[in-house]
Amino acid sequence: MTEETGRARDAHDRWVARDAARVWHGFTQMSVYADNEPVIVDRAEGHEVIDVDGNRYLDAISSLWVTTLGHHVPELDAALAEQAARVAHTTLLGNGNTATIELAEALAPRLPVPDPHLLFASDGAASVEQALRIAFQHWHNRGVGGRTRYLALGGAYHGDTIGALSLGAGGFGTSMLDPLRFPVVRAPGYDDPDWAIGALDLLERHHGTLAAVVLEPLVQGAAGMHVADPDDVRRVVDAAQDLGLLVIADEVAVGFGRTGTLFASEQCGIAPDLCCVGKGITGGYLPLSATAVAPHVYESFLGPDLSEHTLYHGHSYSGNALACAVARRHLELIDEWDVLANVNARAAELGELLDRRIAKLDAVGAVRRRGLMTGVELAPPADGLRWGRRVCAEAVRRGVLLRPLGDVVVLMPLLTSTPEEIERIVATLVEAIERVAGSAA
Amino acid sequence: MTEETGRARDAHDRWVARDAARVWHGFTQMSVYADNEPVIVDRAEGHEVIDVDGNRYLDAISSLWVTTLGHHVPELDAALAEQAARVAHTTLLGNGNTATIELAEALAPRLPVPDPHLLFASDGAASVEQALRIAFQHWHNRGVGGRTRYLALGGAYHGDTIGALSLGAGGFGTSMLDPLRFPVVRAPGYDDPDWAIGALDLLERHHGTLAAVVLEPLVQGAAGMHVADPDDVRRVVDAAQDLGLLVIADEVAVGFGRTGTLFASEQCGIAPDLCCVGKGITGGYLPLSATAVAPHVYESFLGPDLSEHTLYHGHSYSGNALACAVARRHLELIDEWDVLANVNARAAELGELLDRRIAKLDAVGAVRRRGLMTGVELAPPADGLRWGRRVCAEAVRRGVLLRPLGDVVVLMPLLTSTPEEIERIVATLVEAIERVAGSAA
Repeated sequence: MTEETGRARDAHDRWVARDAARVWHGFTQMSVYADNEPVIVDRAEGHEVIDVDGNRYLDAISSLWVTTLGHHVPELDAALAEQAARVAHTTLLGNGNTATIELAEALAPRLPVPDPHLLFASDGAASVEQALRIAFQHWHNRGVGGRTRYLALGGAYHGDTIGALSLGAGGFGTSMLDPLRFPVVRAPGYDDPDWAIGALDLLERHHGTLAAVVLEPLVQGAAGMHVADPDDVRRVVDAAQDLGLLVIADEVAVGFGRTGTLFASEQCGIAPDLCCVGKGITGGYLPLSATAVAPHVYESFLGPDLSEHTLYHGHSYSGNALACAVARRHLELIDEWDVLANVNARAAELGELLDRRIAKLDAVGAVRRRGLMTGVELAPPADGLRWGRRVCAEAVRRGVLLRPLGDVVVLMPLLTSTPEEIERIVATLVEAIERVAGSAA
Repeated sequence: MTEETGRARDAHDRWVARDAARVWHGFTQMSVYADNEPVIVDRAEGHEVIDVDGNRYLDAISSLWVTTLGHHVPELDAALAEQAARVAHTTLLGNGNTATIELAEALAPRLPVPDPHLLFASDGAASVEQALRIAFQHWHNRGVGGRTRYLALGGAYHGDTIGALSLGAGGFGTSMLDPLRFPVVRAPGYDDPDWAIGALDLLERHHGTLAAVVLEPLVQGAAGMHVADPDDVRRVVDAAQDLGLLVIADEVAVGFGRTGTLFASEQCGIAPDLCCVGKGITGGYLPLSATAVAPHVYESFLGPDLSEHTLYHGHSYSGNALACAVARRHLELIDEWDVLANVNARAAELGELLDRRIAKLDAVGAVRRRGLMTGVELAPPADGLRWGRRVCAEAVRRGVLLRPLGDVVVLMPLLTSTPEEIERIVATLVEAIERVAGSAA
C-alpha cells in the first residue's frame, strides 16, 4: 500500500516498465508515461476496471468512448462464445457470412441513413475514409466532373489516417502533415455560435466543386465536447442536400446512445446520405466500424462486372463474424434493457449536478454536455500548469478513471450508469479540481 | 441439390438475397454479386468453410490471406474465451492492458525491426498510415526540414485509406483519387526485373527530400503475386539506410509465415526501421494490426509532456485485449506445431505440382510463387473473357474456395495444409482451367 493513496502498488511499477519497454501508446508522450500513473488493466467487472494490483476504478471514460453497457457483460460474452463455436472470420470479398448479414439487417433500420447498404471495416477512421472515397467516386461514376472537394468544420476530428486527418481541422499539431493532407473548404466549428451561418455561406460559394459535406452531428467530441444547436445542424444539412451535395455524418463518437438517442442525427432531424459508425457498435468489445450508404449513392456503383464503377476498396477483416455477432447482441440489449431511457435519466441528473457543483467553481471555465457526453473546461490561471492532466490524475487516485483533452476533463459515463455512480463521478471531480486548484493558489 | 454441381442450394438464394440487400462487399461489383455464386459461410471446421446449405469448401485463399492455422482452432478458441473471462477491451490511450503488453513482449523479438516499440491498430491500412506518419514526424521532431516525400514501388498495394493509397501505385482504378492522394517518388515494381536498378537511381537523385522508402518485402501480393529477388530487396534497403533514410517494410500480407519464414524481411536479410503487420497476426480470427518502430525513430518522439514531439495518433481499439490474447496464443502455436517447417515442405510440393501440372498449360501465362503465396496468371486468348473469375467459379463448384486478382488465380493455402490438400488444390485448378479454356476454344 502506498501511504498517499491507500492503494496497492506491488505489481504496478513492474508492469508499467514492461509496458513502456514495448508498447507505444497513442496520444501519449511516452517519456512521461510512467510518471503519469497509468492504470494497467488486468481484468474488469461491470462498471469497473481492475488493475494488476487488484485496485478498482470506475470507468468514467467508457474506455475512451467505446464501452457502453459495461465490461464482461454475460450476454455479450455468450454471443462471442456462440459465434466462436461457428466461425471467427471469413472474407467478405466476393463472399458472405451469416453473422455479418444478420448484423446488417438488424442495424440498417436503426441508422439515420434510409434503406442503407453497409460497408464494414474495423477502425473508425477507416469508416470515414470509406465514406469520403464513396462520395468522391459517386460523382465520377455519374459522369459529373469537378466535384473533388469536401466541406468540413473547424475543430473537426474524424480519425488519424491521412484522409480522415485531411477532413479534420489539424488539431493536436496534425497540421504539420499539411504536405500529405488534401485541402478542404473549412467552415467554422461548433465553438463558434455562428458556425452554421459561416457554413451556409461557404456552401453557397463552393457547392459546385464539393463532393460532400462532412460533420459530427450535435457534438464535436475530440475538439473538447463542443455542442451544436440541432436546428443549426439540420439547416446546414438541408441546405447541402438541397444543393444536391452528399452529406456524411460521422457518428463514430456520438452514435450508440451517448447523446440520448441511438444516433445523434435523430435529434438533428437529418437523414445523411452516408453515415460512419464505430466505437460503441460492439459495446466496446471488439474493433468494428461501418459506413452506411443511401440507395442513390450505392446505385451509382452498379455496373458491369469488373467495371470501373466498382468500389475497389476493402479491409481484410471487414465484417468480422465475431465482432458482428457481439454487435448484434449489443443492439438487442440496448432495447431489452431500455438503455436509452437510462441514458436520459442519468443525463438529467448529471446536468443538474454539474450545474450545482461544478459550473460555478472558480477553476471551471465552462461545462458542455449533450446526453452523457460531457466536457468540463478548466480555467487555469496560467499556461503550462497541465490542470487537465493533474485533475484526472487526482480522480484516478480516488478510483475514478478519467482522461482529459488538454484542459478539458471529459466525462463519458457508461450508458448503464447508476445514479450513485453519476454522483460519485461528480463528487470525485469536485475533490480533484479543488485539490489541484487549491495547490496552485 | 442442383443437377450441375451435386451441391445443396436450398438456403443459398435466400441468404444471398438478404446479403445483397444490406451488405456492400469490398472489391466486389454488387450488380453481379448474386450471379457470381458467392459462398455464404455459416460456420467452419479446420480447413473448410461450410455454407448455409452445409456444403464444404477447402479454404484455399486463407479467407483472403488472413487465416493461418485453420478455422475454429480449439487452442485459439480457448485463448479467446480465457481473455473474455478477464476483459474484452480497455483503452491504450495513457493506460495499459496486460494482454497487450504480453503480446508486444512475445512479438517484439520475432519482428524484423530490432528492439521495437509497437503501436497497435486494427486495419492493416491503419498500420501503414501509422508508419508513414511516424516517418514524417520523425524528421520534423529532429528538426530536419524538407523530408516530406516517400519512395514507393510500381504495383505497390498498401491498403485503401488515402495515405496508404498514396503509397500504392494506383491499381484497381484508384488513380481516379489523384486529387486526394499525395504524390510519391515512384520506382518500378517487382514485375520489372530491373526494378532495383531503377529504385537505386531514384534514391540517388531524390534522397534529400525523402522521409522513407516503403516496400512489400519479397512479394507484391495484390499486384498479382510478383516476386523479387531477395538480394535486390536488400540492396535497395541497404542503400536507403546508408543514405540515412527510414525504411518501412509492409509485412501485412507476407508476414506470419506465408513465404516460408515468419517474416519475409528475414529472407531478404533486412532490418527495416519500421514494419507493418496485420492479417495473419491473429491467425485470421480478429482485426489487429501493428506498426513496429526501431529505437532511433521511437526516441525522436520523446519530449516534455503534451509537447509537439508527441505522436497524436491512436485508434479506439488499439491493442484490443481479445485480439492480442488470440495473437499471442497464435504465435506460440506457430512454434509448438512447427508450422514453418510445414509451410516449407508444402511449398516444395506445391512448387513441384505447379511446374508439372500447371505451368505448361496453354491457358497459363506464368506461375509466380514464394512459399505458399502463389499467383497463376492465365493467358486468355482475348480481353473481356473474365477467365480469372470463371476459373475460380469452377473451383468453388468443386469445393475449393479460390478468388482471383483479375486473370491471376491466387492460391493461398493455409499454413497447416496437408500434402493431400495441396494436391487437391492443384488438381482442382487443372480441372477448372481446362473447363474454362476448353469452353472458350
